[in-house]
Amino acid sequence: MLILTLNCRRFSAQYQLYNWGDQAVMATGMVERIVVGDSFLTHRVPGADAKHLDGECADHKDALRLILDTLVGEGLIGAVTDIKAIGHRVVHGGERFTKSVLIDEDVVEAIREVATLAPLHNTPNLAGIRAAQELLPELPQVAIFDTAFHQTMPEPAYMYPLPYEWYQKHGVRRYGFHGQSHLHAARRGAELAGVPLDTANLVTIHTGNGVSLCAVRDGVSVDTSMGLTPLEGVMMGTRCGDIDAGIIPFMVNEAGVSATELDLFLNQKSGLAGIVGRRVSRRTVVDEAVVGDPRCQLALDMEAYRLRKYLGAYIAVTGRPDAIVFTYGEGWEDWPVRGMALQEMSQFGIEVDLKRDEEALKGGREMQISADHSPVKVFVIPSGEDMVLNEDVAAIMGWQ
Amino acid sequence: MLILTLNCRRFSAQYQLYNWGDQAVMATGMVERIVVGDSFLTHRVPGADAKHLDGECADHKDALRLILDTLVGEGLIGAVTDIKAIGHRVVHGGERFTKSVLIDEDVVEAIREVATLAPLHNTPNLAGIRAAQELLPELPQVAIFDTAFHQTMPEPAYMYPLPYEWYQKHGVRRYGFHGQSHLHAARRGAELAGVPLDTANLVTIHTGNGVSLCAVRDGVSVDTSMGLTPLEGVMMGTRCGDIDAGIIPFMVNEAGVSATELDLFLNQKSGLAGIVGRRVSRRTVVDEAVVGDPRCQLALDMEAYRLRKYLGAYIAVTGRPDAIVFTYGEGWEDWPVRGMALQEMSQFGIEVDLKRDEEALKGGREMQISADHSPVKVFVIPSGEDMVLNEDVAAIMGWQ
Repeated sequence: MLILTLNCRRFSAQYQLYNWGDQAVMATGMVERIVVGDSFLTHRVPGADAKHLDGECADHKDALRLILDTLVGEGLIGAVTDIKAIGHRVVHGGERFTKSVLIDEDVVEAIREVATLAPLHNTPNLAGIRAAQELLPELPQVAIFDTAFHQTMPEPAYMYPLPYEWYQKHGVRRYGFHGQSHLHAARRGAELAGVPLDTANLVTIHTGNGVSLCAVRDGVSVDTSMGLTPLEGVMMGTRCGDIDAGIIPFMVNEAGVSATELDLFLNQKSGLAGIVGRRVSRRTVVDEAVVGDPRCQLALDMEAYRLRKYLGAYIAVTGRPDAIVFTYGEGWEDWPVRGMALQEMSQFGIEVDLKRDEEALKGGREMQISADHSPVKVFVIPSGEDMVLNEDVAAIMGWQ
Repeated sequence: MLILTLNCRRFSAQYQLYNWGDQAVMATGMVERIVVGDSFLTHRVPGADAKHLDGECADHKDALRLILDTLVGEGLIGAVTDIKAIGHRVVHGGERFTKSVLIDEDVVEAIREVATLAPLHNTPNLAGIRAAQELLPELPQVAIFDTAFHQTMPEPAYMYPLPYEWYQKHGVRRYGFHGQSHLHAARRGAELAGVPLDTANLVTIHTGNGVSLCAVRDGVSVDTSMGLTPLEGVMMGTRCGDIDAGIIPFMVNEAGVSATELDLFLNQKSGLAGIVGRRVSRRTVVDEAVVGDPRCQLALDMEAYRLRKYLGAYIAVTGRPDAIVFTYGEGWEDWPVRGMALQEMSQFGIEVDLKRDEEALKGGREMQISADHSPVKVFVIPSGEDMVLNEDVAAIMGWQ
């Protein structure tokens, strides 16, 4: 029972081949520079060195062909027919999709309709679906939506205090993202805290290139920090997160910034990159803060301060949580902001064990970083968003 | 020792005549429809009915003349020379003004310079100062800034995660407003809680046409919900407060909304008015919610929910506060959102006595609405922002 999952972005396609029977990842990889030229594939098999393969991909169909050829060529599958289902990560499911679905023409049409909400994301997601339909027409295909987990949010949490017709006519509301990651963190966090998921109150934090929080009450999402777009919320690597919306008309009038420039400034030249003044790796920001660079230190202090305020806000939403769960993607193990934000939080029943937190910075495994006597437990776990894709595909296929 | 304080807005001028020796308000009033025509003055003396006087005011100088004539005509002063100092409320003091100052030409110039940050406010404030300089050239005049109290905010609280040069070149940072009101609430809240101001940790909430919160640590402002402009923060009557900044480019692209329209939408057609779909009084929203209007109920639920999240965030900033202090202006006594936001907050040590909260909705006096056993005290007090103006004038004049 092999599953191929695909995450198609504008110029790249990530994949994972998973053996559902063995519950084992067989291979992962990514095709980069699709469309733009000089494209190549990086292929990884657990326990072996990564392989690089060149291969021009004018579109996502070429990229999928390259992925399938590689899986056969590397001997992971005898033929493409060994794959029994495909899972597509789709960023925006709008209000239509509250869970993963088997893809048919209606679903494709609905994904296209909500693409106005996230054109940069849903369009390549659709290209990936079309490519798979053409190359593997016999295979069942499943769409897994980043927004679906958050569709349980109550109205006061998802509505913005904006003209109501913006919601009615244009779908302006909070949708949230990173749903698979928050779902996994909620499931695993409840297990680790020893409470049933359907009564678990949690705050989950996804850390990666984007960062978002989710307030979980009785096992379901009741609020999340990203909104209509992934710009809202805490401070990120290059995205600003929450700002005074009045800054936008101010900068338009005061500095003649155009709408197009604004999009670029807010999404790509803000956050850590904005404060430090250039696009830098998080590693560099931490290293330079340690040796006394004031802007790098300010950037980290701001990130921690803004995260701390969100933790307080979400504890107001969940009531005293059973646990706070930090989940991190590859390369995000050593995120010192977590420990900074959690200092002096005893008013919330949070007592972090500094030694454990330091140990957790090495990453790679699940850790409880709260002290044993802490009323609220704090866990740090590797991200399980890929696992959610496989689980949803298997559930829809009816596999045990 | 009579003080005249002035609050000049674009089309209006509010005044108060105060006797510092007796610590008594002698008269209050407002000139409306300045510039726009059909202007009139409403004059109030404590214990008497309000008087309406017509009088065309082409500018703020005409308005001040009308005020002075009324004060003499009503027998409150024998001559304008009885007034010993004038206090001007000035909205934006930028980074230059950390406290109230005696006005000289340098100060006028500095207020003019920061007017780019709040042109709709500082420009009429300056018109009021100029009018007073021309009509009462001998009188000392004091500027009291809405932003000054918040100038103690630390850098991580006042900086936005935006391109750093926006701060350097254009002054884009959090300034905050309602400073006099938060200062009064902090002083009075510390007294009521029985702690010295300089060690008091408080969350203060100003409720009026604008609503803002302030986190007070050791007696000084360390964060506030309004930002570069008064648009940021909790949901208000017609302002949206916090939204996903990504909504703005989305609405520009999707619906062709212009920058000018956006300013109008966000500041005047959002908040309660946005959700209800028309500009309504808060009283109407409450009344219609009670009889089952779903949009009015949603508007109140959203306002309470968003306030609740801010309370959690600011408790994360202050540590467990000594008190939470709600302060309200005239007409804002019966704000039910306060009680809604404070439900089920025992995780923060907040236990509200519902009967006391109901009693407080009648307004008019200071109330403790927390239960006697509540670790965090909650007070509701009338706004004292006018008092701060008089106190600052007297302090600068060296009066005892």
